[in-house]
Amino acid sequence: MNVSIIGATGYSGIELIRLLENHPHFQIAGLHSSSAAGRHIHEENPHLLHITQILKEIDPIKIAKESSIVFLATPSGVSAKLAPQLEDAGLTVIDLSGDLRLKDPESYKTWYKKEPAPIQSLEKAVYGLSEWNAEYIKSAKVIANPGCFPTAALLGLAPMCVQQWCDGNSIIIDAKSGVSGAGRTPLSTTMFSEVNENLKIYKVHQHQHIPEIEQQLQSWQGDIGNIEFSTHLVPMTRGIMATMYVQLTEQVTTKQLIDLYKTSYEMHPFIRIQQEGLFPSTKQVMGSNFCDISVAVNERTGRATIVSVIDNLVKGAAGQAVQNANIICGLEETTGLKQVPLFP
Amino acid sequence: MNVSIIGATGYSGIELIRLLENHPHFQIAGLHSSSAAGRHIHEENPHLLHITQILKEIDPIKIAKESSIVFLATPSGVSAKLAPQLEDAGLTVIDLSGDLRLKDPESYKTWYKKEPAPIQSLEKAVYGLSEWNAEYIKSAKVIANPGCFPTAALLGLAPMCVQQWCDGNSIIIDAKSGVSGAGRTPLSTTMFSEVNENLKIYKVHQHQHIPEIEQQLQSWQGDIGNIEFSTHLVPMTRGIMATMYVQLTEQVTTKQLIDLYKTSYEMHPFIRIQQEGLFPSTKQVMGSNFCDISVAVNERTGRATIVSVIDNLVKGAAGQAVQNANIICGLEETTGLKQVPLFP
Amino acid sequence: MNVSIIGATGYSGIELIRLLENHPHFQIAGLHSSSAAGRHIHEENPHLLHITQILKEIDPIKIAKESSIVFLATPSGVSAKLAPQLEDAGLTVIDLSGDLRLKDPESYKTWYKKEPAPIQSLEKAVYGLSEWNAEYIKSAKVIANPGCFPTAALLGLAPMCVQQWCDGNSIIIDAKSGVSGAGRTPLSTTMFSEVNENLKIYKVHQHQHIPEIEQQLQSWQGDIGNIEFSTHLVPMTRGIMATMYVQLTEQVTTKQLIDLYKTSYEMHPFIRIQQEGLFPSTKQVMGSNFCDISVAVNERTGRATIVSVIDNLVKGAAGQAVQNANIICGLEETTGLKQVPLFP
Amino acid sequence: MNVSIIGATGYSGIELIRLLENHPHFQIAGLHSSSAAGRHIHEENPHLLHITQILKEIDPIKIAKESSIVFLATPSGVSAKLAPQLEDAGLTVIDLSGDLRLKDPESYKTWYKKEPAPIQSLEKAVYGLSEWNAEYIKSAKVIANPGCFPTAALLGLAPMCVQQWCDGNSIIIDAKSGVSGAGRTPLSTTMFSEVNENLKIYKVHQHQHIPEIEQQLQSWQGDIGNIEFSTHLVPMTRGIMATMYVQLTEQVTTKQLIDLYKTSYEMHPFIRIQQEGLFPSTKQVMGSNFCDISVAVNERTGRATIVSVIDNLVKGAAGQAVQNANIICGLEETTGLKQVPLFP
Repeated sequence: MNVSIIGATGYSGIELIRLLENHPHFQIAGLHSSSAAGRHIHEENPHLLHITQILKEIDPIKIAKESSIVFLATPSGVSAKLAPQLEDAGLTVIDLSGDLRLKDPESYKTWYKKEPAPIQSLEKAVYGLSEWNAEYIKSAKVIANPGCFPTAALLGLAPMCVQQWCDGNSIIIDAKSGVSGAGRTPLSTTMFSEVNENLKIYKVHQHQHIPEIEQQLQSWQGDIGNIEFSTHLVPMTRGIMATMYVQLTEQVTTKQLIDLYKTSYEMHPFIRIQQEGLFPSTKQVMGSNFCDISVAVNERTGRATIVSVIDNLVKGAAGQAVQNANIICGLEETTGLKQVPLFP
Repeated sequence: MNVSIIGATGYSGIELIRLLENHPHFQIAGLHSSSAAGRHIHEENPHLLHITQILKEIDPIKIAKESSIVFLATPSGVSAKLAPQLEDAGLTVIDLSGDLRLKDPESYKTWYKKEPAPIQSLEKAVYGLSEWNAEYIKSAKVIANPGCFPTAALLGLAPMCVQQWCDGNSIIIDAKSGVSGAGRTPLSTTMFSEVNENLKIYKVHQHQHIPEIEQQLQSWQGDIGNIEFSTHLVPMTRGIMATMYVQLTEQVTTKQLIDLYKTSYEMHPFIRIQQEGLFPSTKQVMGSNFCDISVAVNERTGRATIVSVIDNLVKGAAGQAVQNANIICGLEETTGLKQVPLFP
Repeated sequence: MNVSIIGATGYSGIELIRLLENHPHFQIAGLHSSSAAGRHIHEENPHLLHITQILKEIDPIKIAKESSIVFLATPSGVSAKLAPQLEDAGLTVIDLSGDLRLKDPESYKTWYKKEPAPIQSLEKAVYGLSEWNAEYIKSAKVIANPGCFPTAALLGLAPMCVQQWCDGNSIIIDAKSGVSGAGRTPLSTTMFSEVNENLKIYKVHQHQHIPEIEQQLQSWQGDIGNIEFSTHLVPMTRGIMATMYVQLTEQVTTKQLIDLYKTSYEMHPFIRIQQEGLFPSTKQVMGSNFCDISVAVNERTGRATIVSVIDNLVKGAAGQAVQNANIICGLEETTGLKQVPLFP
Repeated sequence: MNVSIIGATGYSGIELIRLLENHPHFQIAGLHSSSAAGRHIHEENPHLLHITQILKEIDPIKIAKESSIVFLATPSGVSAKLAPQLEDAGLTVIDLSGDLRLKDPESYKTWYKKEPAPIQSLEKAVYGLSEWNAEYIKSAKVIANPGCFPTAALLGLAPMCVQQWCDGNSIIIDAKSGVSGAGRTPLSTTMFSEVNENLKIYKVHQHQHIPEIEQQLQSWQGDIGNIEFSTHLVPMTRGIMATMYVQLTEQVTTKQLIDLYKTSYEMHPFIRIQQEGLFPSTKQVMGSNFCDISVAVNERTGRATIVSVIDNLVKGAAGQAVQNANIICGLEETTGLKQVPLFP
C-alpha cells in the first residue's frame, strides 16, 4: 500500500521515513515539502544517504494519484488548510499537528492563537489515541493524531479516569520533554549552548496541550475539571515523562491500582506496566513505540503518583501515526513497529 | 581565619575548595579525607593541578589546633559520629550532611535507615537556611547545612507559608536534579551511558528530604501536613529545579504574590525574584550562590505554581555553607560568593 | 536458525539482543551470563520489559544442543578460554572480544597484558572485517570480530592501502569514541559528572587496537610501518569517528580518491561514500550498521584526510557480528540490519 | 580603571562581563551592542538578573569619554571597520575577532572572504599571545587577541618550535571544540537536537585559523611549512583540545620534552604542564584561564604527541583579553583571573 508524507523534512517527517522504510506493507510513494521541493531528501539529512528520493511539491491531486494514505507532519496552522483539500482528493489523512484535535474551534483560537480548521473537518476527525479509540479509528477518513504530551498523560490517566477514581479537580501533570519536541527551526531557545546543562520550564499555564488533555479526560470521567499542566525542557533529544499527581476518591492500594492498569492494558502490546516499586525512565522506550507506566499510592497523602514515559517522536508522533494507519488498514497494530528500544 | 574541610574529595568538598580559594578572609588550613589521606589533592582532581596540599587524616584535636571552623562534607552516617568530637575539640562545625537536620531522631532512623546523632548534638544544631535563620546562625556552634532539594523548595515556599497562604495539605513538590547530587562514588545508576539522553524518577514517596522540608515548613505555618515530593535525575551535572504546586487559601493575583516575594527577599542579595511571565532555568544560577524564584497564579485552578532554581553544589551545599560561615564570623554574607553565574 | 549470546548483559550483548529480536532468520535460543544467571534479562534492562527470557549459566555442551552459532560478548581474557570449548562442542563462534584477533600471541601479551588464547584457536580464527574478508568468513568456524576503532580505521584506509598509495610510515589515526565503548562496569572515569561537558584523551601510544590495525593494514600494503593512534572519549553514548592523515605516494586529486572509494565499495551497501566537500558526523549512522566515509586531499600539504564514522555498538560490534553470521549462513549480508539511523 | 565592551551580548562579551565583574581594578563603564541597544543586559541573559546596566549604542567618541580600554567582542568583518575609529578616539583596543591577527591582508581575504582592515591597523596590532608576547603587549595600543584554536595550538607547540625541534612539514593539529565557539546566532548546525550525541568534523583544510597558526609558528621556527589542521564539533558547551602530532628532529625522551616545557613556562602561572603519563581533559580548565599541556614521545614512531586544553571562552577569548589588559596596565597578569576551574 502506498503512502505519502507531507512535511517530510521536519523531525516527525524524518521519523515517519525511518519507520515506514522498515514497514512490510507500506511503501513511501512521495516525500513532500513546501520549503525543500526539488532537493534530495539526503541533502540535509545525511543519515538518509542511501535514500535517493527527491522531495516534491504539495499537490493534493497528484498525491491522491500515488497514495491512499497521507501523513501530514506539518506545523500547526498548515493542516487546518491542507487537510480538507487532501480529504476532498480522496485520501485518508493522518494529521500529526494540533489542528484537528480540539472539537471546539473557539478553544483552538484561544490556545493556538490561529484560525481553526473548518467545523466539518473537526467533526469528521477521529482522535487517534490508538489504545482507546481503535473502534473509531478503524473506519476513520481523518485522524487527529494526539500530541506528544497528551499521549503520555492520557495513557497514564485513562484507566483511573475510566474507573471514575480521580478527584476531578486534583489532577496535576508535571511534564518533561526532550528538545526534539520543539521542532527543527533554529531558535535561540533550542541552541545547544543554551539548552545543554540546563533545565527550563516554559509556557506555564499556557500550553496548547491543556485543552486537548481535558477534552479527552472528560470523555472518560465527566466531572474532570481544569488540570494543572507544566512543561519542562530537558537537555536530551528524545523522550517525554509525565509525572502526575491525583487525589483518589477511593481508598486503594498500589497493588490494586497496578492490577487495574495491567487489566486495562493487557490486550495492548505497546503499553508496559512496571511492577510495584519500579519506575520508568525515558531511555527505556527510546526509538520504540512503547509507553511504560508506573503507579504508586502515597499512603501519607492519599494521592496516586502516575509516571508515564514515551519517545516523543515515536509513540508521541510518527509511531502512533503508523499504528493508526495499521488499524485503518486492518493490519496487526504492531506491524513495522516492533523495534526494541535503543539502549544505551 | 583558618578553616578545614573534612571529606575534601567528594563533590561538595571540591566545591568548598573552589569557593574558599577565592575567599578573602578564610584560609584553608587542612584538607582531610579518610580514604585518600597522604595523597596530593590534585592527583584525582587535575583541575586543582596548581594546588599542592596533601590530604590529611581526620584527627579532631589536630584540626582544632589549625582551624576555628570545620566543614564536614562527609556522607550521612559519618557526621553523626564525627560532629560531636569536633564540637568537643572546640571547633565550630558546619555539617553538610543530613545527620543533624532532623530534630526527631526517630524520624532520622525511619528515613535514613541509620543510627541518629546524639540528641544533644541534634538540639544544639541550628538549621542553616541562611536567609531565614540568620539570627540563630550568628551564634551557632553547630550548623546543620540544609539539603539541596530542601534549600530550593523552602526558599520557594517560605514567603507563602510565613504569610499563612497555603492550603496545608496541598503542597506538591516536583523536584529535578543534576547528577552531581548523587555523589562521586561510581554506581551503575550514575554512569554516563545510563544517564545521558535519559530522564529518571527515583525514590518516589521515600526521599529522606521529605521530613526535612516538612519540619521547616511547619515552623512557618503550623497546619502544614504531609507533602508530596518527587525527585527526578536530569542528564546534566549541576542544577536543581523545584516546581511546586500549592492551593492558595487567599484569592491573590500573580502580581500580589510577586510583590510578597520581592518584599520578603529584598534584603537578601542571593535571592532573585523574576518578573511576571518569566520563569527561571537552572543554568542561570550555575556556579553561583543565587536562588532564582518565579511565582504565578493559575486562574483556571486557583493554584500557585512556584519555581525555584539553585546550583545544587553551591547554594544547595558548599555556597550556603560558606554563607553560613560568613554570618557566624560577622562578615558580609556575600563575602567570597559574588561569582557571576557561568554562562553558557 | 538458533543462536545464543554469552555475555548478554553487557552493552554489546544487549545490542545483539536488539538486532536479533528483529532478525527474520535467527532465533535467540539462550542468553547467558556468568554474573546474572537465574535473573530475568529485563531486571536490569527495563527497555526489554516485554522480553521474558531468564539468563542462563555458561555451559558449552548445553549451548551447543540449543544453537548452531554462539556470539561471545565477553571481556578480553574470557574468550581466550571459552572459545576453544565452544568450538569443541561444535558451535560456530563469533567472538566480539580482542582475544582472537592478533595472530601473534606475544603481541597479545604485550598489548593486552593477559594470557593469549591457544595458538590453534588463533590460527583458526578468521578476522571478521565483513567487507574485505567475506571469502574467508563464509567457511569460518571461528570469527574474530574486529574491534570498534579498527573497524572504523580499516574501512577508511583499505582502498588506499590496497592501491598501495600510502606512505607506509605516515599514517596518523586520531580516533574519538562515545562512552559506551568503555563498557558497563561502573568506573570513576565513566561517571556522568566526570564525562559530561568533558573531552578526554586516553591510552596515548598504548591502545590495544594498535597492533590489530597494523596487522590488517600490512596484509593489504606490505610496507606499512608503525602507526600513530590516539583515542579520545567524547561526551556522547554511541559513535566513533576516525580522523586519519596519510601522506600520499601518488599525486591524486580528491575526485580521483573519491572515485577509488566508490568503486572499492560499490558492492557493499553498508559503506556510504560522501560526495566531495561533505564530511560525516557520528549521528548519521547511529543505531545502524552503516560506515560513512569521506576523503579529501589537502593540496597545501599533499596529505589525504580520511574521515570514517560508525556506531561503535553496531558496525563496531554487534552489527558486524550479525553481518558475519549472515555471511556464514549464506544469507544476504544485510538481513535484519536494514535499520535506518535514528535521527535526531 | 574604566573599560567598555562592544558586542556585549555575544558569548565572548558575556564572558567578559563575568570576569570583569569580579576584577578588582577594572570597572565596566559601558556595555555596547548594535542589535540590542536600549535593552537591559539581563533581558536575554537572565543569569545577569542582578545587573541592571542598559545596553548602549556603539559611539567611539562617547566610549572614549567613559573608558580607557575597549574590548571588541564583535564578529569578523566588524572590527576591521570599528577598531581604527576606536583607536583614533584614543582608546586602547583589545580586539577578540580575527580581523587584526593576520599581517598579510591578502591572506585575510583568502581565508576570511571579507575585506581586510587598513594596513596601518594591521601593522600596529600586537598579537596578544600573553605568555610569549608580553614585551610587545605592554606598550601596545591595539591588541589582536588570539583565536581560540590558535591559543591552544600555539601554547602547545611553542617550546618545541622555539627550540627548533620540529620537522617543519610534519605538524598535524587535530582540534576539537565545544559548541559555544560557534557563536550565539541560531543555526541549524548548532541546534541541540543536531549537535547532541553527535561528533562532527567541519571546515576541513579551510579553517581561517590555519594562517594565524602558521604565521606565529614561523616567527619562532623559520622553516615551518604548511600545517595540517582539522576541527571537530564536540557535544559540549565549552572547551578546546588540540591533539598535535609532530615529527621530532632531535632524539629526545618524553622526560626531556617535559623538562623543556616546564622550564619554558615556569614563570607563567596559567600554563600547567602535566607529569609524565598523565593527559589533560577539557573539564579540568573549565571556567578558568588555565592552559594545561601534556607531551609524550612515541618511541615506535619518533613523533611527539602534544595535547593542549583550554576553555575556549576564557583563555581562548575573554580571559586572555583581560590578561592582556592586565599586562598593558602594569598589573599582575593573574589579577581577577584566579578562579579555580568549575568541577564537576
